[in-house]
Amino acid sequence: MINSYDIIVIGAGHAGVEAALAAARLGKKTAIFTIYLDSISMMSCNPAIGGPGKSHLISEVDILGGEIGKHTDKYNIQLKYLNSTKGVAARVTRAQADKYWYRVKMKEVLENTENLEVIQEVIDEILVKNGKIVGVKSSLGIEYKSKAVVLATGTFLKGRVVIGDIKYNSGRQGEQSSEKLSDSLIKNGIKIERFQTATPPRIDKRTIDFEKVTELKGEDNPVYFSIFTKKEHNLNIPTWLTYTTKETIKVTNELLKFSPIVTGMIDTKGPRHCPSIDRKVLNFPEKENHQVFLEQESVETNEIYVNGMTTSMPPFAQEKMLKTLPGLENVKIMRYGYGIEYDYIPPFQLYPNYENKIVKNLFLAGQINGTSGYEEAAAQGFMAGVNAVRKIENKEPIIIRRDEGYIGVLTDDLINKELLEPYRVLPSRAEYRLILRQDNSFIRMLEKSKEIGILKKEQIEHFEELKEAINVEINRLKNLKVYPGLENNLVLEGMGEKPIKKAITAAELLKRNRFSYNDLKYFVDIREYPKKVIEQVEIEIKYEDFIEREEKQIKRFKKLENVKIPKNFNYSNVNGLSNIAVDALNKTKPFSVGQASRISGVSPGDIAIILSHIK
Amino acid sequence: MINSYDIIVIGAGHAGVEAALAAARLGKKTAIFTIYLDSISMMSCNPAIGGPGKSHLISEVDILGGEIGKHTDKYNIQLKYLNSTKGVAARVTRAQADKYWYRVKMKEVLENTENLEVIQEVIDEILVKNGKIVGVKSSLGIEYKSKAVVLATGTFLKGRVVIGDIKYNSGRQGEQSSEKLSDSLIKNGIKIERFQTATPPRIDKRTIDFEKVTELKGEDNPVYFSIFTKKEHNLNIPTWLTYTTKETIKVTNELLKFSPIVTGMIDTKGPRHCPSIDRKVLNFPEKENHQVFLEQESVETNEIYVNGMTTSMPPFAQEKMLKTLPGLENVKIMRYGYGIEYDYIPPFQLYPNYENKIVKNLFLAGQINGTSGYEEAAAQGFMAGVNAVRKIENKEPIIIRRDEGYIGVLTDDLINKELLEPYRVLPSRAEYRLILRQDNSFIRMLEKSKEIGILKKEQIEHFEELKEAINVEINRLKNLKVYPGLENNLVLEGMGEKPIKKAITAAELLKRNRFSYNDLKYFVDIREYPKKVIEQVEIEIKYEDFIEREEKQIKRFKKLENVKIPKNFNYSNVNGLSNIAVDALNKTKPFSVGQASRISGVSPGDIAIILSHIK
Repeated sequence: MINSYDIIVIGAGHAGVEAALAAARLGKKTAIFTIYLDSISMMSCNPAIGGPGKSHLISEVDILGGEIGKHTDKYNIQLKYLNSTKGVAARVTRAQADKYWYRVKMKEVLENTENLEVIQEVIDEILVKNGKIVGVKSSLGIEYKSKAVVLATGTFLKGRVVIGDIKYNSGRQGEQSSEKLSDSLIKNGIKIERFQTATPPRIDKRTIDFEKVTELKGEDNPVYFSIFTKKEHNLNIPTWLTYTTKETIKVTNELLKFSPIVTGMIDTKGPRHCPSIDRKVLNFPEKENHQVFLEQESVETNEIYVNGMTTSMPPFAQEKMLKTLPGLENVKIMRYGYGIEYDYIPPFQLYPNYENKIVKNLFLAGQINGTSGYEEAAAQGFMAGVNAVRKIENKEPIIIRRDEGYIGVLTDDLINKELLEPYRVLPSRAEYRLILRQDNSFIRMLEKSKEIGILKKEQIEHFEELKEAINVEINRLKNLKVYPGLENNLVLEGMGEKPIKKAITAAELLKRNRFSYNDLKYFVDIREYPKKVIEQVEIEIKYEDFIEREEKQIKRFKKLENVKIPKNFNYSNVNGLSNIAVDALNKTKPFSVGQASRISGVSPGDIAIILSHIK
Repeated sequence: MINSYDIIVIGAGHAGVEAALAAARLGKKTAIFTIYLDSISMMSCNPAIGGPGKSHLISEVDILGGEIGKHTDKYNIQLKYLNSTKGVAARVTRAQADKYWYRVKMKEVLENTENLEVIQEVIDEILVKNGKIVGVKSSLGIEYKSKAVVLATGTFLKGRVVIGDIKYNSGRQGEQSSEKLSDSLIKNGIKIERFQTATPPRIDKRTIDFEKVTELKGEDNPVYFSIFTKKEHNLNIPTWLTYTTKETIKVTNELLKFSPIVTGMIDTKGPRHCPSIDRKVLNFPEKENHQVFLEQESVETNEIYVNGMTTSMPPFAQEKMLKTLPGLENVKIMRYGYGIEYDYIPPFQLYPNYENKIVKNLFLAGQINGTSGYEEAAAQGFMAGVNAVRKIENKEPIIIRRDEGYIGVLTDDLINKELLEPYRVLPSRAEYRLILRQDNSFIRMLEKSKEIGILKKEQIEHFEELKEAINVEINRLKNLKVYPGLENNLVLEGMGEKPIKKAITAAELLKRNRFSYNDLKYFVDIREYPKKVIEQVEIEIKYEDFIEREEKQIKRFKKLENVKIPKNFNYSNVNGLSNIAVDALNKTKPFSVGQASRISGVSPGDIAIILSHIK
């Protein structure tokens, strides 16, 4: 029996699924392995997708040819459009996903993808020849050959569930961990560290007192993640809001002595952006009212995710704490919250194409790179899948720069920054937020998408037409004059707007706060365009000055980015560099001075020295 | 935190689910525990429900107030009515269940049942005080108190998956086993043995050559399992038939040296009624053409269950064997077949109310009693749940005798027969097959159902009305004369029937082979009755002579059944009994001479001696 594939993907979570779909859709014979076929695309934690930074990743993956956007648009129970009244950079979509349907239907997508085999097997070893991966070996002793492998193991590598003073082997509560694969990685020279994460209890919907909590609904007309979503799907099932109270803080304080992070049962690093209730009370003892969202996991279940009450305290403590929340006085827990520790591979060992620096053709994506979040996982999985294919086709990798997309920010941060906790993408990590918007991903990523080749020719052409229409219309409006005639000024007055005293362009008029494209019709001819075109015309004109400022910054950024550092550059020979910088630079081996400038431990002074040395 | 319940159920498979629903519906505060909430009501093996013997169990559980019948009627992909042209005793329903929907929706049923809590927890210990169970303790250290406990652990107690020469801890492939509970049972004096079972590989539907297999459809107008099913639900999705070939036998023979049952990796007893392909070839080497059914597991998946190819051979062997089947030349396996060994509690330790003889108020149901099959599990679970409730209410147990129902056959066999392999209900085990039909369960079980009290008063009254109508109509037809007039005989001639020469009753006419109730209308007045009434009138009249014969046998059976044996009867003091009989009788401690007669090792001669001794 010869099991031979172009690409093998290990793990069928949010990273693995995108990697496998991308590879198979690019025509490669692909196999995806999972420990349990019934848990494909499981949302182990929050049944939510999107939000700031994350929705940007989704919209970028979407236009590049990934699945997460389309799938979330179909299998959710509620969609929100956050910050719709704030600046355009902050506007993002957030979904309550339907945990059951998302997973069952993603399995179906995989099963019906050409070139893709879905196999239940535990992978124990990577097979390496002359520094290059040539396949993997399963716990049943089968060798599966392949030209490249994507590892996307989530929390399963030596996963240890922690609740109170109990710790046991598990990749996710109720499921088996992968006990041998890490050792095989270590044997091949790869460095491994431990991270931890945690999840709150799931409670029985029937035991909530709905009189005491606030109902939160989604949009009636949501902004979908995917530009391909046409069919309206919007169940708009509510979630609910409650708060921690003085009593919560008091009770938690008393119980802290049982917390694994206090007792030392958990000593690895967890995500600070998603602190447990134990941690919140430890760090901010004076704050009483933390928001707690009660989120239904699926239309098919009464299980409610208690967002904000993450904890790995012992069960009795979890119950005591929950019962202090208004509405949860009589709560019944269906699954206890727990912490989980797992192996990850610190991503300084990663090239920007998601390939491992030690073992050739071994790609890594998702939590194994020390990240957190379904969206981060999906983005990495997609890029790893695409670049694994390009590697075996001897094509240049697709690398998205941090000025091009949130995928670039994520990638660049991962390979350059030292991770002190599981990495999450945040708008604050992006320097060019006005340019890297959710709404314009289909323009920003279009060239890359064309290069990748998953989208059909007609699709690419359609988006190229939209892009062209946007440019044409912006130019038209910039050259179209509006004159200060009586009629125009009467209309302006009627709108409560200042009159014009000299001729201005239609674009200038559109820049006014209250003006929409449609409002221009009283002054100039406007045209029939798809919604997406009009939206971009409005945004690009209204934010023109800010966008131009960012574009200038990007130009400066690119300058440093284009100063390449030779592959075998010896930092130890450079006079004046700090020891910390030399260590960090030798570890990461940046490709450019730009990249070097973003490595933890490298100061602007160090960069000046390197620059002068190279010139 | 005090967790206190009336009834606790451990395990949420087909037994546990019925036990918990029954207890909760009888008004008891109930908790059901499962290792993994997402696997409730999982069909670990064949995605099929029903068939000979099994459908009888389902229809009995149905009228008693259980869930399996209704649920299968809703969540299936195909329904068949087997043997519809054969004798009435053989006619049964068989469903291809929808493995996904069955499970997701059963979880929903549990979650929305009043008095019932569904909790994810691993139970490690039973808590016993003065020989009586008082609760359980979880792996997280929580004590849950209760008045009675139902154990329904399936294959999870020290479950060991076996494939080729690999063996590892697992309750079901991909899921955690329960490692500690058996030890707690042993500590309390309960005897434990090991059984094994196995499951075939699941293959990718896309890799079947449908030109080479035979499509099998279900009924367009199926006979549903449940008498409560009103809404028509019938997807009628096909399954497919192929065969083993000469090549299969040759290949399997060559591979037998790798079979765990040959190498000794599996040394426990497995079900002979469901032999692996390895076993078939070992035992019947001359037979070439074994049927192999290809059964889709759900509308949501391409996974196909290969019914007839159960094996725990190593993966390469599984693939080799499958590829010899017509249509599977290019097959891809998605999950490999495997064997599983597990602890069970030999059921001589069981009272007929499913209570353990050693630990009071501890009830047992399903595979833990050494049975196999979802239907057997459901029937036991239901009876255990009901009797656990009756025990804590100090009510007489509900015990169904073997002349009353297949549930009785199952129960009576379990407590009296020594199990040499996992027990499956079979029509051949029932002595009174003409009376114990699928179609008349709603009459046979009506009094018991009333006594149990899950059905609503109106429901019971409705069935009592049907029963009454059947009796009334049978009596009417038996007293209604048909005379040999010219007109009648002309009609008979037109029907191709023999003329009548003297007056006969309408019932006698109906006994003729081709006659339906409706055909009587040419001779006598017929009445408008529900379908179910007419069906029973027809069957009861047509099979009258055979049924009467069985009723006589039952009378004889009951005679011995009514000769009670005193609780402390000392068999060792009875002269002439064989040693084997004394051992067996002391082990089982039968309640009646009837029961004694069915105990393995007790001969008719022994019974005669006991009878004379008691008299």
